[in-house]
Amino acid sequence: MLDAVRSALGDKAVIADPDAIEPWLHDWRGRYHGASPAILAPLDTAGVATIVRLAAEHDVALVPQGGNTSMVGGATPPANGRALILSLRRMNRIRAIDPVENLAVVEAGVILSDLHEAAQAQGRRFPLTLGAKGSATLGGLASTNAGGTQVLRFGTMRALVAGVEAVLPDGQVHDGLSALKKDNRGYDLDQLLIGAEGTLGVITAVTVRLVPAVVDRAVAWVGLAGPDDALALLRQMEAQTRAIESFELLPDESLAAVLAHVPQSRAPLSGVHPWHVLIEAVASDAYAEPPAAVLERMLAPALASGLIADATIAATEAQAEAFWRIRDSISASERAMGPAAQHDISVPVAVMPRFMIEAAAACEAAFPGTHASGFGHLGDGNVHFHVRAAPGTDPACWYSDQAPFVTRFVHDLVVAAGGSISAEHGIGQMKLGELERLSAPSRIAALRAIKSGLDPQGLMNPGKLVALAPDHSKP
Amino acid sequence: MLDAVRSALGDKAVIADPDAIEPWLHDWRGRYHGASPAILAPLDTAGVATIVRLAAEHDVALVPQGGNTSMVGGATPPANGRALILSLRRMNRIRAIDPVENLAVVEAGVILSDLHEAAQAQGRRFPLTLGAKGSATLGGLASTNAGGTQVLRFGTMRALVAGVEAVLPDGQVHDGLSALKKDNRGYDLDQLLIGAEGTLGVITAVTVRLVPAVVDRAVAWVGLAGPDDALALLRQMEAQTRAIESFELLPDESLAAVLAHVPQSRAPLSGVHPWHVLIEAVASDAYAEPPAAVLERMLAPALASGLIADATIAATEAQAEAFWRIRDSISASERAMGPAAQHDISVPVAVMPRFMIEAAAACEAAFPGTHASGFGHLGDGNVHFHVRAAPGTDPACWYSDQAPFVTRFVHDLVVAAGGSISAEHGIGQMKLGELERLSAPSRIAALRAIKSGLDPQGLMNPGKLVALAPDHSKP
Repeated sequence: MLDAVRSALGDKAVIADPDAIEPWLHDWRGRYHGASPAILAPLDTAGVATIVRLAAEHDVALVPQGGNTSMVGGATPPANGRALILSLRRMNRIRAIDPVENLAVVEAGVILSDLHEAAQAQGRRFPLTLGAKGSATLGGLASTNAGGTQVLRFGTMRALVAGVEAVLPDGQVHDGLSALKKDNRGYDLDQLLIGAEGTLGVITAVTVRLVPAVVDRAVAWVGLAGPDDALALLRQMEAQTRAIESFELLPDESLAAVLAHVPQSRAPLSGVHPWHVLIEAVASDAYAEPPAAVLERMLAPALASGLIADATIAATEAQAEAFWRIRDSISASERAMGPAAQHDISVPVAVMPRFMIEAAAACEAAFPGTHASGFGHLGDGNVHFHVRAAPGTDPACWYSDQAPFVTRFVHDLVVAAGGSISAEHGIGQMKLGELERLSAPSRIAALRAIKSGLDPQGLMNPGKLVALAPDHSKP
Repeated sequence: MLDAVRSALGDKAVIADPDAIEPWLHDWRGRYHGASPAILAPLDTAGVATIVRLAAEHDVALVPQGGNTSMVGGATPPANGRALILSLRRMNRIRAIDPVENLAVVEAGVILSDLHEAAQAQGRRFPLTLGAKGSATLGGLASTNAGGTQVLRFGTMRALVAGVEAVLPDGQVHDGLSALKKDNRGYDLDQLLIGAEGTLGVITAVTVRLVPAVVDRAVAWVGLAGPDDALALLRQMEAQTRAIESFELLPDESLAAVLAHVPQSRAPLSGVHPWHVLIEAVASDAYAEPPAAVLERMLAPALASGLIADATIAATEAQAEAFWRIRDSISASERAMGPAAQHDISVPVAVMPRFMIEAAAACEAAFPGTHASGFGHLGDGNVHFHVRAAPGTDPACWYSDQAPFVTRFVHDLVVAAGGSISAEHGIGQMKLGELERLSAPSRIAALRAIKSGLDPQGLMNPGKLVALAPDHSKP
């Protein structure tokens, strides 16, 4: 197989030096460890097609890899050492940016922050961002239907991808890049490939939607009694404006953790409040109502009616950034407080306030000494729900013996609330078992039917998303 | 099979009276004719599941049917008389409307105009409408990914459906109604079922998104030189406002046809212009810029720069309705001028102006005496492209001997322009052969793999969208 790839695509397309391979055999958090004799690194779509065809001929499994930023082990090769890593990182051209049509055609290996900059240079923006923007690639973002902090207004990758180019498991190229606004020619293959985690083929390029660059923004910090009031405030705002782009909820203990661990951080409000909300409003054209005016118009009556206890609008861009820094420092600050089980979950938005309170109480009752809390994108129904080990717990013991039970418990609560055990991180290998345990048989049967219909040899990213026989991830 | 359904669901669930069945054996335009011994009419999702299970046991094909308004024979049973019609029309409850979450849960048999009224009663609207709104059902609209005149702003059904409940071919119920904003639990079955034309299972209910009711609207009529200028105007407007909801382009001959055939119709502008555009701007909240002001702000500089020749904004609601009546009368008026081949096609928006001119010229050159023209949703890249027979052509001869060649010719032009031979009407049985002729082998292979993976017996709406062996639509 490796000789065939070398002879078809040249020596540079095969990386077999163990030292060069090593960093890509593990996920970035060091939780998953795989093995592979080589990384294949094609330069273009034709090269990917050649590799996929050769893999089918030689019955060799492929693990597509972009920035290797998966939170669920989705890009780590299986431990049996028989799969090859297919790196898309050399395919990193922005093929076109069209500021009139508001579309960009981008290869799979383009890094998110590079696309941000290229769009900005044309007076546009790609309205999806997340912590890993400096290494996450567009191919990986599409393959995992990534989310982030702007989903409230712009949706996940599924809403932002207008077309997909991919190599299907039989080595043929599916070209859906033309980004037709209306196209009813049978099952939507683009939508099927988005979020498929590379198990149905390899995304090689995407056409993505752009929006006008931001003209003005305003950031508010609000103190209030609880998640119920926060949701009521969000609903009031949504009924009166389309300018709200972020609406992040956090408990006072998360703010306290940040204040305790991040130097020079300050509480935005003077009083003490049980819960906090960070709100960003944005204007994309000069005729829109100024974002600060939008926030004032919304927050004044909420203060007057007692729905919220206090609020302040950042007076300067530096202050706005300081508000966001608090939000972005929560995970790191809480990590400093001890080992925890973290859950990327969603429930229907209307249910979220009650879920946050009741699930935390249920967890703490079921696992005495633990401390549970949630924070995040209230408007998306997506919170990051953390359960911290009892003080003094040995981290190794927590992760091997206790955290899995906590996670099963949390997932059961999520399913009972009609929610999803994977809001934005996907299934990968981490949640494969939980997906099977908690899904209706019809869903698993349908996933298997689609997988085995499109990838009958089971060679595309084996052992991720849905388990199949023959399982190329097993010894 | 019929006895089994009667014994499971009661006598009312089986309609076997030939007179009652007859109207549902043909499409509404009378182009497709099928045969079936019975219509099955379950009352609820459990009833549909029972029928699908029994069909699998008895190896009997099912043809799901809503309002029977397909433009491509998608709901007409095969002529072999062995399939049963599965009518969803008795499942016509609006299960819930939530004006806070802006969601409605609607059964498959609910008629579109009934949903419009129910949403309006709660100060909301469902922003998709089309000519057949008095009979088209939500199940059919979702199964065909229907479009309409508001796609420019709100997208097709794919963007408006937040969740799907369906009975899969194995008789199990897929429940995706909970409408999570973030959910990455494997392949998106909801998106796969939308636009699948009932070939992968039967949609029994959908959760759809609502938007605020319209507070104010303004409608303008613009005269200009050609499609290029129209697209430039649309781009100018889109860069400065989000209020534009419709942007319909028509040639002067379409206006002339309406003026000649529709009593009491009047030209909106005094001069003669080669092309016309109808524009609707809408405000959904009291703080938005008034729609008439939006249109004035956009049209005044376009007039001053010479991009457009003339424009008027409807002064009254009656005048606005008169403008829309012209647009809505084009098809009927042109039909009165002789037989034609009609094509529901799309190309990339940027290509559309040139395509409209060049494709019309190419058709008229290839088929002397014919007359070709396009009108429609410029902003969606979707025009209705009509080729009228040479004057004096016998209609029967045209439809049997000439129109098919014209259609192949038009479709070849569409494919060469990177477009779709089905913009919003789907494939059904009408375009099955053309889809196979004009698709990349990878697309057809993938459609077949998905179909045979999920419906191995081939019992779900056989002979539609993709052909398979065993083909339950064949004698």
